[in-house]
Amino acid sequence: VHVALPSAALRDRLAARLPDARLEVWAPGPEPLPGPVDLLVLPYMIPAAELRYLDGQPIGLVQSQTLGFDGVREHLPAGLRYCNAVGVHEASTGELALGLVLAMQRGIPEAVRDADRGVWDHRRRPGLSGARVLLVGVGGVGREILDRLAPFGAEVTRVGRSARDGVHAVAELPELLPHADIVLVAVPLGDDTRGLVDADFLAALPDGALVVNVARGPVVDTDALLAELSAGRLRAALDVTDPEPLPPGHPLWSAPNVLITPHVGGDTAAMDARVDAIVVEQVRRLRAGEPPLSLVLGPGA
Amino acid sequence: VHVALPSAALRDRLAARLPDARLEVWAPGPEPLPGPVDLLVLPYMIPAAELRYLDGQPIGLVQSQTLGFDGVREHLPAGLRYCNAVGVHEASTGELALGLVLAMQRGIPEAVRDADRGVWDHRRRPGLSGARVLLVGVGGVGREILDRLAPFGAEVTRVGRSARDGVHAVAELPELLPHADIVLVAVPLGDDTRGLVDADFLAALPDGALVVNVARGPVVDTDALLAELSAGRLRAALDVTDPEPLPPGHPLWSAPNVLITPHVGGDTAAMDARVDAIVVEQVRRLRAGEPPLSLVLGPGA
Repeated sequence: VHVALPSAALRDRLAARLPDARLEVWAPGPEPLPGPVDLLVLPYMIPAAELRYLDGQPIGLVQSQTLGFDGVREHLPAGLRYCNAVGVHEASTGELALGLVLAMQRGIPEAVRDADRGVWDHRRRPGLSGARVLLVGVGGVGREILDRLAPFGAEVTRVGRSARDGVHAVAELPELLPHADIVLVAVPLGDDTRGLVDADFLAALPDGALVVNVARGPVVDTDALLAELSAGRLRAALDVTDPEPLPPGHPLWSAPNVLITPHVGGDTAAMDARVDAIVVEQVRRLRAGEPPLSLVLGPGA
Repeated sequence: VHVALPSAALRDRLAARLPDARLEVWAPGPEPLPGPVDLLVLPYMIPAAELRYLDGQPIGLVQSQTLGFDGVREHLPAGLRYCNAVGVHEASTGELALGLVLAMQRGIPEAVRDADRGVWDHRRRPGLSGARVLLVGVGGVGREILDRLAPFGAEVTRVGRSARDGVHAVAELPELLPHADIVLVAVPLGDDTRGLVDADFLAALPDGALVVNVARGPVVDTDALLAELSAGRLRAALDVTDPEPLPPGHPLWSAPNVLITPHVGGDTAAMDARVDAIVVEQVRRLRAGEPPLSLVLGPGA
């Protein structure tokens, strides 16, 4: 089996686990692949538009390192098979979601700024225990958030595309939002979720509510959120933004009551081992003639 | 039953739940109690030295609003019975401990400072999943931390005063510390724990390890910690400090890789209901002639 990997680091990590595979380093760019590969692993967070460099290249299977694949359908050359990285980022993103919630509920951003001025300002903070949490998203990230919320004593209400046991439908949001202290958004970006968190969604939240986005930036209408933040009415914690990266001088940087992390939901020390495991499994399946893991676009998907 | 409460807010909250009790507002100070009380509730976080104002006052039972009572034995006038606030702060402190750990493992203090400069700096952070966590303290706060750590996929090792099933003894720390990525300290302050985290303790930790103190400031030797922080070798998150409050200009404020919160472990919106429940229960017990809850000092303790 012939595998192209986007970095020497990844190649070196995998060499011992795939002694019989031919591994080489190649990342999409003007320079073409030196020869046919059975499996191409994409760089982490490659812009979808750069998938044009795969056009006409001899690639059996494309493996991404991200879970979300918004924009990929539009840019993936016809005929290529594309797998997303299920299992790599969900746990880390759930972990960050709890970190963002706890930071905002316990005054950590204020503590950081106070410390930089040498100020000890003891003040009561709301906490997470007893808070009414609306978790929008029942996929892998939503489940990881749910598991991690469990011991904190919050009142969690789940929302999915359609209603089922223990899950409300998105259509019920207008009735649910007025009773949420915290809304966590963990949905894939698609036509049905772009701008889901718009001015109406935000207006339905009670004063002081916290909006947490660990999904994709365009799920939230940035201007609508900015208006609520600037009015001092809502709070937000965003690991993803629209635009992204957030450019210098963007008003979101200086809005009150917002915590922004630079899209690091999935990027922890735990990521490498999970990527390695996927590549090893895809190679095993290619050799065994089994269908690939997590084929989401292209022939057979 | 006659109850003295430290604030009108507490009196107003309890009035409906204790319709047959006589409630009045009094806090320790030069002004004496107007008459005998069966139960005195202390102000939250009153300095132990101010307990001298209780000397000679007709008080049946003293109820504090804190869990730790370091220094109280030395200042409580003889003959008074003192109850600590078991059940009020453990969950909130466990919650904050997770907040501090996640903030430090996911780069949240750096994100706050970057945002203030309008800088988007995507960098890999260590995360909590897979980290080796040493949890020192098997009391109420330790248990609340343990429960909240459970879904995060860390490798947790517990340490208590003495060894038992699933718990190592403090005496084993020299062998355990070199294998800890994160040390959480949640022990009461006493003769055996003052300075527990000293230069030797810290020196035994691997480079980059995180020390989290949600116990009491003097459990950590501030100078020893400062030396390790200034050398860039260790990281710390401290909800309690020595001295406390940390004065302006103290070198801990400007040390690298430290997150300081102003002793807010127990102070969340959830606190009031828990304090109310204790006062209501103590009044019930006084009326029923039952022994008080959590009597830790004085006759009968």
